[in-house]
Amino acid sequence: MPDAAPPSAPSERTTLKRLPDRGRFDREVLHAILDEALICHLGFVHDGAPVVVPTLLGRIDDTLYVHGSVASRAMRTAGRTEQVCVTATLVDGIVVARSGFHSSMNYRSAMVFGHARLVDDADEKVRALDAIVDHVMAGRSADLRPHTDVELRATTVLALPLDEASAKVRTGGPVDDEADLDLDVWAGVLPLRMVAGDAEPDELLRPDIPVPAYLADYVRPTTAG
Amino acid sequence: MPDAAPPSAPSERTTLKRLPDRGRFDREVLHAILDEALICHLGFVHDGAPVVVPTLLGRIDDTLYVHGSVASRAMRTAGRTEQVCVTATLVDGIVVARSGFHSSMNYRSAMVFGHARLVDDADEKVRALDAIVDHVMAGRSADLRPHTDVELRATTVLALPLDEASAKVRTGGPVDDEADLDLDVWAGVLPLRMVAGDAEPDELLRPDIPVPAYLADYVRPTTAG
Repeated sequence: MPDAAPPSAPSERTTLKRLPDRGRFDREVLHAILDEALICHLGFVHDGAPVVVPTLLGRIDDTLYVHGSVASRAMRTAGRTEQVCVTATLVDGIVVARSGFHSSMNYRSAMVFGHARLVDDADEKVRALDAIVDHVMAGRSADLRPHTDVELRATTVLALPLDEASAKVRTGGPVDDEADLDLDVWAGVLPLRMVAGDAEPDELLRPDIPVPAYLADYVRPTTAG
Repeated sequence: MPDAAPPSAPSERTTLKRLPDRGRFDREVLHAILDEALICHLGFVHDGAPVVVPTLLGRIDDTLYVHGSVASRAMRTAGRTEQVCVTATLVDGIVVARSGFHSSMNYRSAMVFGHARLVDDADEKVRALDAIVDHVMAGRSADLRPHTDVELRATTVLALPLDEASAKVRTGGPVDDEADLDLDVWAGVLPLRMVAGDAEPDELLRPDIPVPAYLADYVRPTTAG
């Protein structure tokens, strides 16, 4: 992971320089990473200093939505700033090399740069919130009552276009130095994945209500290799 | 997750305002989150715009280390900037509420603000790199050959003191509106956790080398509730 070059200079932020084989500006890959990642990290600048907060996300076509309480200063600040950076990272495994230097991670990450627009339109806000709910639990929004006006007013939603974005993917085993191959040390990949446990009912839940299928058989949509 | 107030104004960045019960400035909690999180997200400002990159981490006492290739512009830039923000987030479960508004995540996150020092001293660099390797695989560094001078020169290590840091933790079930409790909709928590699969040997691995215990029985040190 550390040896993949992230974008840096604004004019070339989506051009991956050092290891171009790990940079894929491919909309399908980008969408897949964003759709699988349960959370993302939203970065913005406040008084000249960077702030990075974890948040849920949702996607509709080429717009990424994140949300927060109107009382959350992070969301308000991010919505007022010129630029944000949203990064979502999926960890697929540990690359166990024969040296520390070549040890790495298999991962997929998406970075999106741009201006985060505060969503004012009530209809768009509803669509965005439903997209975020369904992003976490596919189909959940259809089971829920409509959002109330009070709830909508109490929620800040930011929209970020996927215009300036990049994806990076590392897969496969370690790439060791020739001289290290005879070392008496194990090498390979340890795959990692996120799994769901059994759904735990709320103590106030009516006992006649069954666990919905999207929770009983919970899986993230994945493109992991 | 979105309704937890993250720090924002620099002078009060580590004071959590809105939901103080989710803000725990407690060194033990902070250390535990950083030690469990496989990766973190490093935020810095480049030409006025935020950049957030995923990276591995390691901790020695109250110093957080992240590293990257010297060819990585992100690491070089982060090491030159006044301030960085490192955020590590552990997702523990989905809080399945009876409304979209109260739907949330159970999570633990740590945010560290400060100046990231470029590590020049070779001994400190070695200790930091070993800490990062052992952070990912406990005990791995003892199995590996020493770092070479070339490798050390090719690696950028940043040190960030845990002086200005905060932790946030959300646990437990949904907190629904009274009026929603009779709705015909399931509510509770879906626990999530990261698990390792079977270690996959490198195709060049000598067949007499067994999978080490720290990979065969891989677990993250956890304080999840």
